[in-house]
Amino acid sequence: MVSLAVAGLMMGCSSAQGDEASAKVERIPEVEELLAQMTVEEKVGQMAQLTVDVLTVGEDAFSTTEPLRLDEEMTRKALVEYGVGSVLNTAGNRARTLEEWHTIISQLQDVAMNESRLGIPVLYGVDAIHGTTYTAGATFFPQQIGQAASWNRELVRRGGEVTAYETRASGIPWNFSPVLDMGRDPRFPRMWETFGEDVYLASQLGIEIVKGYEGDDNDVSDPTRVAACLKHYLGYGTPLSGKDRTPALIPEIELRERHLPAFEAAIEAGAHTIMVNSGLINGVPVHASYQMLTELLKDELGFTGLVVTDWNDINNLHNRDRVAKDAKEAVKMAINAGIDMSMIPYSLDFCDYLVELVNDGEVPMARIDDAVRRILNTKHKLGLFETPVTHYEDYPLFGSEAFTDDAHKMAQESMTLLKNEDQVLPLPKDARILVTGPNANSMRALNGGWSYTWQGNNIDDFTADYSTILDAITAKVGANRVVFREGVRYDNAASYWVDEAYDIAGAVRAAASVDYIVLALGENTYTEKPGDLHDLTLSENQLALAQALARTRKPMILVLNQGRPRIIRSIEPLMKGVINAYLPGNYGGLAVADVLFGDVNPSGKLPFTYPLYANSLVTYDHKPSEHQARMSGVYDYESDFAIQYAFGHGLSYTTFEYSNLSLSNTELGKDGKIDVSVTVTNTGELEGKEVVQLYTSDMYASITPDVRRLRAFDKINLKPGEEKTLTFSLTPADISFINEGNSRVTESGEFEVHVAELSAKFNYTE
Amino acid sequence: MVSLAVAGLMMGCSSAQGDEASAKVERIPEVEELLAQMTVEEKVGQMAQLTVDVLTVGEDAFSTTEPLRLDEEMTRKALVEYGVGSVLNTAGNRARTLEEWHTIISQLQDVAMNESRLGIPVLYGVDAIHGTTYTAGATFFPQQIGQAASWNRELVRRGGEVTAYETRASGIPWNFSPVLDMGRDPRFPRMWETFGEDVYLASQLGIEIVKGYEGDDNDVSDPTRVAACLKHYLGYGTPLSGKDRTPALIPEIELRERHLPAFEAAIEAGAHTIMVNSGLINGVPVHASYQMLTELLKDELGFTGLVVTDWNDINNLHNRDRVAKDAKEAVKMAINAGIDMSMIPYSLDFCDYLVELVNDGEVPMARIDDAVRRILNTKHKLGLFETPVTHYEDYPLFGSEAFTDDAHKMAQESMTLLKNEDQVLPLPKDARILVTGPNANSMRALNGGWSYTWQGNNIDDFTADYSTILDAITAKVGANRVVFREGVRYDNAASYWVDEAYDIAGAVRAAASVDYIVLALGENTYTEKPGDLHDLTLSENQLALAQALARTRKPMILVLNQGRPRIIRSIEPLMKGVINAYLPGNYGGLAVADVLFGDVNPSGKLPFTYPLYANSLVTYDHKPSEHQARMSGVYDYESDFAIQYAFGHGLSYTTFEYSNLSLSNTELGKDGKIDVSVTVTNTGELEGKEVVQLYTSDMYASITPDVRRLRAFDKINLKPGEEKTLTFSLTPADISFINEGNSRVTESGEFEVHVAELSAKFNYTE
Repeated sequence: MVSLAVAGLMMGCSSAQGDEASAKVERIPEVEELLAQMTVEEKVGQMAQLTVDVLTVGEDAFSTTEPLRLDEEMTRKALVEYGVGSVLNTAGNRARTLEEWHTIISQLQDVAMNESRLGIPVLYGVDAIHGTTYTAGATFFPQQIGQAASWNRELVRRGGEVTAYETRASGIPWNFSPVLDMGRDPRFPRMWETFGEDVYLASQLGIEIVKGYEGDDNDVSDPTRVAACLKHYLGYGTPLSGKDRTPALIPEIELRERHLPAFEAAIEAGAHTIMVNSGLINGVPVHASYQMLTELLKDELGFTGLVVTDWNDINNLHNRDRVAKDAKEAVKMAINAGIDMSMIPYSLDFCDYLVELVNDGEVPMARIDDAVRRILNTKHKLGLFETPVTHYEDYPLFGSEAFTDDAHKMAQESMTLLKNEDQVLPLPKDARILVTGPNANSMRALNGGWSYTWQGNNIDDFTADYSTILDAITAKVGANRVVFREGVRYDNAASYWVDEAYDIAGAVRAAASVDYIVLALGENTYTEKPGDLHDLTLSENQLALAQALARTRKPMILVLNQGRPRIIRSIEPLMKGVINAYLPGNYGGLAVADVLFGDVNPSGKLPFTYPLYANSLVTYDHKPSEHQARMSGVYDYESDFAIQYAFGHGLSYTTFEYSNLSLSNTELGKDGKIDVSVTVTNTGELEGKEVVQLYTSDMYASITPDVRRLRAFDKINLKPGEEKTLTFSLTPADISFINEGNSRVTESGEFEVHVAELSAKFNYTE
Repeated sequence: MVSLAVAGLMMGCSSAQGDEASAKVERIPEVEELLAQMTVEEKVGQMAQLTVDVLTVGEDAFSTTEPLRLDEEMTRKALVEYGVGSVLNTAGNRARTLEEWHTIISQLQDVAMNESRLGIPVLYGVDAIHGTTYTAGATFFPQQIGQAASWNRELVRRGGEVTAYETRASGIPWNFSPVLDMGRDPRFPRMWETFGEDVYLASQLGIEIVKGYEGDDNDVSDPTRVAACLKHYLGYGTPLSGKDRTPALIPEIELRERHLPAFEAAIEAGAHTIMVNSGLINGVPVHASYQMLTELLKDELGFTGLVVTDWNDINNLHNRDRVAKDAKEAVKMAINAGIDMSMIPYSLDFCDYLVELVNDGEVPMARIDDAVRRILNTKHKLGLFETPVTHYEDYPLFGSEAFTDDAHKMAQESMTLLKNEDQVLPLPKDARILVTGPNANSMRALNGGWSYTWQGNNIDDFTADYSTILDAITAKVGANRVVFREGVRYDNAASYWVDEAYDIAGAVRAAASVDYIVLALGENTYTEKPGDLHDLTLSENQLALAQALARTRKPMILVLNQGRPRIIRSIEPLMKGVINAYLPGNYGGLAVADVLFGDVNPSGKLPFTYPLYANSLVTYDHKPSEHQARMSGVYDYESDFAIQYAFGHGLSYTTFEYSNLSLSNTELGKDGKIDVSVTVTNTGELEGKEVVQLYTSDMYASITPDVRRLRAFDKINLKPGEEKTLTFSLTPADISFINEGNSRVTESGEFEVHVAELSAKFNYTE
């Protein structure tokens, strides 16, 4: 272990590496010219980001009075006196119209550009998650976990493009998206904001969404594009307790094997900005980690863009995590660690402290210049100096059918058919149907958090024109064939987990007159800490509703509408069919009905392992010892990898047959590649889409190998009887892993390729 | 991160450090003389350990035919031809009489000493957990978790002494105990084998039990002492999935902060041997880790004793963990990593492979000599060359009242009164009582695993003379006042979690005629992988029994008899009183009744945090962010540290008042100390014992500080009205922690001392 010990703490010191990282950042003449003229105060101001509530008329900094308008005095203080460089968020925690956005951002830019000494535009940032969250009328796609379930690269990119366009239509050039954290812990309240548990899938879809936001060439001066913000760098999503913003224990080998690749790929894809993990890794808040921010991110990965904190996270170094003895020391730690911009969000103290720290030599000017250069470069690349605010009138496609069709398509492709006993699905359109459950008639639940409001409450103010599951079913089969008895309802004024079994008996009675029951269960909306949970099991009321309905013996279809896989072990055997809808957005009701009645053949595949038990949470890419055969002898160990549904699982209304798995070579050399081809045939009677998944297994390695790893996939469409032969290439890099020395290596030895039930072996020799 | 990267793998290479470690091992002339004469085969034989079933007459290597006798041919092959140096375990997985032990071990030693060339005695090892597990009539103490709940250093040491005596009475000089793993994960099936979640408590009690086994001077040639075997080095007990023998992710800072100290303290206390963690840390099986075994254990900690594998764990490097491409490579990896002895346990292939590896230069002879020296030194220190087998006739105190009184006392002091609403306890002895629940009449459940058999099944063959909870209650109040209806029963032929609600109605009817209900719930017996669980919630049948009984409105006392804190959230509010009995052993029934009726005033304190929810598992020494106050502003995060009962909690039938917390100084310097004194007064009407617990909090530190840490404790007895003033000393080492560079440091700053509700502050300045 001696060799792992590091000499000492590096926080608070500026090293040669920091300078090297800084040297890589592009020198743009206009920016350099500006930088040369700036006072310390002006530079520090650029590094500050306020939430817009501070600048609006309201009772206090935390609130906004309707109708929304700027507090001119406060705005001048912030943008002129302090030279604040960035503003974020919506006002009063609710979506705004295009007109409101235009007015408010125009006014901000007016003040910033016309009243401040140097006329630097404000960089406005927003959480445009699964669509432009905070703009009324915007096109909402499924949340990322549903997008991941589509396994459709093209549609993920398309979602990014639509969101970029509509965010720019709102006058906003910077989007705090995508989430590239790994969704490997179903307890985590933001699991649904991720692309799921697999490193490769998340990396691939991360590249697509970044390209969707920034374009193939990452030219974000294009007014239909936004700067992406990768978040939350690094290791967010797997804290020890499963709770948001709590400590994680992640050794470096695991950080590099599971958490880093998606960020690495997206940085390689040109993403302009990155947001830091609000949590702690191995006792160190990431916001205070020189190793993570400067050494790993800026030096090793060569990230030359802008690094922004998450909400209040510099203060958290003092208030919450107690690594800084006061607020000023917190600022020093974070900036010296490599933070470029502070999402403050309420107080200007940050600026005062940082100016003092620079003047006292506690934060080197070189660090400040590096930060400000990254910020001004971003503004320059976004074209803000020329076009500080885009105008919604230039965005005719905002909310158009072309966009909403794609959102609908993505919702359809995300639907994952987990169970279909006796081919109960699709349902006949002349059947009588009981629609029940707290998620059956809720636009709120379909959308999830980050939808018009932070926690997804008050969604109904904005969604009158969309269809709930109930609406969509009714539209398919006619009102006369549908009975709706909710049975259990959420308390929309309470925490997300509060529901009430107010009418189970009514639902049961109603079941008597129908042919099928469609039971929509899951969760109400949440995100971040308010979404923490204590028990992964589905709510007792919802389980009771399912059990009561099962006693009617009517065939029942469970539609899961939830952000994470809540435990359904006790009711799953009662269901003839199970569809996971995730959080499919405003077109999710339609998509559920499309699949229920066979207007769409489902093609989603689980992007995570669906657990069977609350305390048995293991990912598909586990180590061999998680699943052990019984040993011989008296100590008859065995290990039970008990799951509800496997990663990659998802049924279709047609059948696919895999054949002819073949390798171009059974020997792979250092600079070689192997082509793996496989034939897929639609052997059923319906056209359908199939996700072809290629896994490898490393038979022996210096680090106990994962049992399987996804290495390639493609989604194809096949007509009945049609067959396609796909070819994937495997290179040594594809079968590499992080070794005990924390380096990426490919070790010689035997490997296995798996596609569906087929497998083949090859050898790698260095 | 660059600075954390290590050049490469070190497994399989012998380094300067290894030589250094080897040089520290004592040179005993007699051992050196022997070593000089030994062939490679003889040396390798010493490093081999077989389970005794291999050497007994039976169907195959895995079994033993009754009556137990040695297979002479096989014994000669192993001990003479292969020169096998060690044998372990009982035969046929059941306890043996003193006579049987004496016969079998005498015969083994006869063959080893009289028929082999060098006449080296066999080192016999056994799991004598909470008493001499595998000897009929031995004195069983509470399992370690119950011992920890006593917080009584003296009694823990006494338990070690009694166990050492009775193990030697069985002819066995080597005990695979204590467990010094941290009990920080309630899902883990061996949590009850630990001293709980706190680093200091485990370290303190670890020292006591080692001294109990080995004596103050660690002179294990004393025939009443055994060599201790610390296990399972290192980081066992907190795997990612909570399952036994599965991968853990533990960064070095956490290994050193939480897992290492108890081992370090016990090595410092002179423990002779150590057993290795069967699991994997950060992808590397500990059995293959040169860093863990040679660099950290032998070099840095300077451990000069014997390092033995756990069951089959060299084979597991190939079969299970796939880091070795075949069984022979597994042997090479493990021995080169620093393993001295292989608990093989069935096949002699180990010896053949290792001889080949040495002859081929794949394992250096220096490594073999180091291993054999450590083994022979241990045999020498145990006096085996002079007295290869002790005789039970020389152990008159075996199973004597003097011993069993101490076991009974320890059981009493482990009882932890968690709830006592309206002072429902103690119960009057003239009350009519319903005794119910699957644990009410089970010696098996009282004892837990490692009791007469591995999994604790067939305990009833050995425990006819002891009292179950029912027996003990009946003895206190008379049979005419007791009704027994079990309600739910375990299936003793099935897995530990299988129970049956066969008579809940009967129990409820019986409740009508009584004044109180004593409900004994918990778990049936298990250990290791068979004890894995999927859901921490108490079994549905047991919860149903509690709920049904609650409807009778009779005051109900819950007695918890379980190895880990199963979730009782839904029934706890129905109880007037709750006693945690843990796994109290053969005197546990008596101890429960002693406390129920006030013959003993309870004084146990929880050695772990009792969780409230299955997915909300946090230890008391968590980081500040696990428990956050609501923030101001629109993003109103909060964090809910929801627990059932706190670490250190435990009620008494009397009351204690704390006063006059005072510090000798409010400034602590580098070489200084602060005396903390506090006065405790028994303000009630009964004599009682109190555990005085001293915690500190570091206000700010470079690593986010734990909210509290236990730094000192003492258990005192107070008569009614009596007061005592205790003084504890705090030194800079007591408030140190592991920093980002993985070094132990004490950082300047403010600290808080907490004793009960009192607190005081001091400053440390380097």
